[in-house]
Amino acid sequence: MVVETKFARFDSITLDSGVALAPVEVAYETYGALNAARSNAILILHAFSGDAHAAFENAEGQEGWWDNVIGPGKAFDTDRYFVICANVLGGCRGTTGPATVNGATGRPYAMTFPVITIGDMVRLQKMLIGQLGIERLLAVSGGSMGGMQALQWAVSYPEAVAAVIPIATTSRHSAQQIAFNEVGRQAIMADTDWNSGDYYDGPKPGRGLAVARMVGHITYMSDASMREKFGRRLRGKDEFGFDFSVDFEVESYLRYRGSKFVERFDANSYLYISKAMDYFDLSAGHASLGDALGQTAARFLVLSFTSDWLYPSYQSLEIVRALRSRNRDVAYCELTSNYGHDAFLVDVREESDLVRGFLASTYAEIAA
Amino acid sequence: MVVETKFARFDSITLDSGVALAPVEVAYETYGALNAARSNAILILHAFSGDAHAAFENAEGQEGWWDNVIGPGKAFDTDRYFVICANVLGGCRGTTGPATVNGATGRPYAMTFPVITIGDMVRLQKMLIGQLGIERLLAVSGGSMGGMQALQWAVSYPEAVAAVIPIATTSRHSAQQIAFNEVGRQAIMADTDWNSGDYYDGPKPGRGLAVARMVGHITYMSDASMREKFGRRLRGKDEFGFDFSVDFEVESYLRYRGSKFVERFDANSYLYISKAMDYFDLSAGHASLGDALGQTAARFLVLSFTSDWLYPSYQSLEIVRALRSRNRDVAYCELTSNYGHDAFLVDVREESDLVRGFLASTYAEIAA
Repeated sequence: MVVETKFARFDSITLDSGVALAPVEVAYETYGALNAARSNAILILHAFSGDAHAAFENAEGQEGWWDNVIGPGKAFDTDRYFVICANVLGGCRGTTGPATVNGATGRPYAMTFPVITIGDMVRLQKMLIGQLGIERLLAVSGGSMGGMQALQWAVSYPEAVAAVIPIATTSRHSAQQIAFNEVGRQAIMADTDWNSGDYYDGPKPGRGLAVARMVGHITYMSDASMREKFGRRLRGKDEFGFDFSVDFEVESYLRYRGSKFVERFDANSYLYISKAMDYFDLSAGHASLGDALGQTAARFLVLSFTSDWLYPSYQSLEIVRALRSRNRDVAYCELTSNYGHDAFLVDVREESDLVRGFLASTYAEIAA
Repeated sequence: MVVETKFARFDSITLDSGVALAPVEVAYETYGALNAARSNAILILHAFSGDAHAAFENAEGQEGWWDNVIGPGKAFDTDRYFVICANVLGGCRGTTGPATVNGATGRPYAMTFPVITIGDMVRLQKMLIGQLGIERLLAVSGGSMGGMQALQWAVSYPEAVAAVIPIATTSRHSAQQIAFNEVGRQAIMADTDWNSGDYYDGPKPGRGLAVARMVGHITYMSDASMREKFGRRLRGKDEFGFDFSVDFEVESYLRYRGSKFVERFDANSYLYISKAMDYFDLSAGHASLGDALGQTAARFLVLSFTSDWLYPSYQSLEIVRALRSRNRDVAYCELTSNYGHDAFLVDVREESDLVRGFLASTYAEIAA
């Protein structure tokens, strides 16, 4: 099966900042079939640098970023469920973002694009779901920033979602998480080619964006997984070079990942999306996290990973405690993995079993 | 007491790379008095961005970087001991480094400076100690990169040191530690003002160096200490700015520390010193770490801190195990602290007690 990205268009969206963005377009993909009762739809929410292409192969032969859990017989079983994934607002993979041409000026928005929030991303997703004729989702799920969106869905639209699966995520960014994002932003803005965001006619700020991505990759892995994958192995040499070319495998890996990222990601989107993550605080506007989650009506399955030091388990446990304090239906599992934050994408065996069972029981309950 | 930085000059030093560097100058300070037997000298070894000014105030009114453990009645008691601290080879605080003018060309070395190692730094320190008329040091001690030098002293010059106190350090850099250093180097080299290292007549690569330093600061603190110090507090505003100026206190802190660092540190020194740390592997040239440490003759006090995730305790325990496997005299303490890697500089009460006792008993043994 070769999947295609589709597009939905809306006249306008009003953002948390008060600004109205008009018009707005959403890139999305769907897998499987919507049933007659429209009760089997699952919305998959992507992480920071993800996109709408979550599963199967597309025309370019690229596999979806979560293909190992979405498909026939997989955790998000496309034989049973209708799975949707959309590129987030502010992104650079089809949905309106800073690289989009502003119709009023005929030039890319660049830094005139309004600052967006996780709540804004979710608001646009709700508009998409409505256009697809779906009133209530069977489930929303995602890891990292995808988990933030899943939590926001449960709070913003309690009647519109039956089950929530936030993975390797947090109810709000900590100082350390903000700090890592800020370093990435500063790396981009330090690149003279960034040119205050106005680079779409000239060279891209690729050096700064690559550095930002390298920092990211370190935080996505664990100390142990980097030791196993690279250790102190040298790259293409038996002895130190005593120069500043690549000595170690890990240096080569980081440089490669940095340069590959520049090919597919827009630096301004990096700024806007990382800002949305830093602004995210599910308890904002409520007396407490418990109060925020107390207004949800869904069942929750919260997952975290032992070696994830970027989104450590204690942040998932805060969510679980807040839900239980309001007697909400929540199950929590900490999965053993060496892969760090990347675990939710790569170490999916146990994750798959848990998700499969949770979806099946929710679906059975809805049908009953 | 106002201290002054002194300078020692040497005709030449031969480096681990095989290159001879000539001439070479060392900036150092001393505190306290050398006794008649020349048996009370302690060499303090600074970390990555440190310098020779370890204690007391200098003429500019600046307190030394480890003033809270060096001084009269303090852990490194200057009423009893003669304390020496020198800026490392490759540094930018008085000792010969990439910013030094190469006599042969009349221009700063810049990237023609030879790549140096921790072993080279220690070799130059040994020359300095010799010039000061000291054959055997009572102790060598330092944290982080200072701890690497302390370990190297014990292996390179076993007869020249009685006690070794490596703090918050490792016998070799892990893939993760190399990765963080590489990101810093890439941030500097991505700055167009870096100009392949040839910037001494023009603008300095301050933006890249600031980004490198910001990454460093995150790794020096713990998640908990950042939460306590900053949390999600906003800086000078009650609500989000919905722009890319400073929102959070932690952003302001990182930008400030980044910009301050640029005033006092040379970007090329950052490259060379971080490379020396990455090359460091105490077991290199030996069959094992045990074999390397088996040739030492000193007593060891190894210290690490619970919340230090940059130089985690397991790396100190590797050193302890290797020493014990050769029946060496070693004590190890893991100190409880929230301050992360910075703990060795700031959370010094328990550290001081342990160091004081260890030095006193070593000194008594030598005198006996």
